[in-house]
Amino acid sequence: MWTYETSLVWNADETGTERALGRPDWAISSPPEFGGKSDKWNPELMLVASVESCLMLTALSVAKRQKIEIKAYSSRATGQMAKTADGLRFTEIRAHVILEVDLGVDPARAEQLIRIAEKYCPVSNALKCPLHVTVEVHTR
Amino acid sequence: MWTYETSLVWNADETGTERALGRPDWAISSPPEFGGKSDKWNPELMLVASVESCLMLTALSVAKRQKIEIKAYSSRATGQMAKTADGLRFTEIRAHVILEVDLGVDPARAEQLIRIAEKYCPVSNALKCPLHVTVEVHTR
Repeated sequence: MWTYETSLVWNADETGTERALGRPDWAISSPPEFGGKSDKWNPELMLVASVESCLMLTALSVAKRQKIEIKAYSSRATGQMAKTADGLRFTEIRAHVILEVDLGVDPARAEQLIRIAEKYCPVSNALKCPLHVTVEVHTR
Repeated sequence: MWTYETSLVWNADETGTERALGRPDWAISSPPEFGGKSDKWNPELMLVASVESCLMLTALSVAKRQKIEIKAYSSRATGQMAKTADGLRFTEIRAHVILEVDLGVDPARAEQLIRIAEKYCPVSNALKCPLHVTVEVHTR
């Protein structure tokens, strides 16, 4: 069992500071469309970033175990939020992963890394809304 | 409908950089217990922070609408992750909120702000695992 602890303090208006032991302070705000600041991370972006980064770190860990060398990894992710009868709700999160592997690696096997990561990533597994992942593999 | 977009690039080992347009870059890593760095935010902490900050910003917005003046707001939050047959899974997230309001405000009404925020916070509503929130109200 592992515990992840954060703390938060409200500063003024729609802004606050998130803290976690040993990490840099993190200024947060409401999204600009709800009265917040566009130069600060907001909870919606943080949720998308946590899914996106968990997917990558899980994939890297699977690659290591399978002894597949990753040359480069990048991704883009989007979260869609809609107004529903119950209030604002995330309807889906999408991620597009660009993976670079050695010429000798089967691209299908590289894509499979991401599919396994999707299955094991604890953050995306904590979500109710669907996660759609597309993968692009480059060899060099 | 609103879209929240992030991007991620892998740096080396178990670290990467999360980006969102106009916001500061955000260095991320696996948790130290899975081979990452203890001085960087990890996806598990980011998930907890996104729930915690969404709860606060939703509560502040409800307070504004109800014309209840908040003097101070802070919280602590924890996410529990356990090893299950399906891999690592979040089992629950807990938040403890400390709210300070004017002497004239009914503490029960102040607590109610948080209960309403729980109901409407889009991030906690995106989660499968239960969120338990306790509230402490101080008047001054």
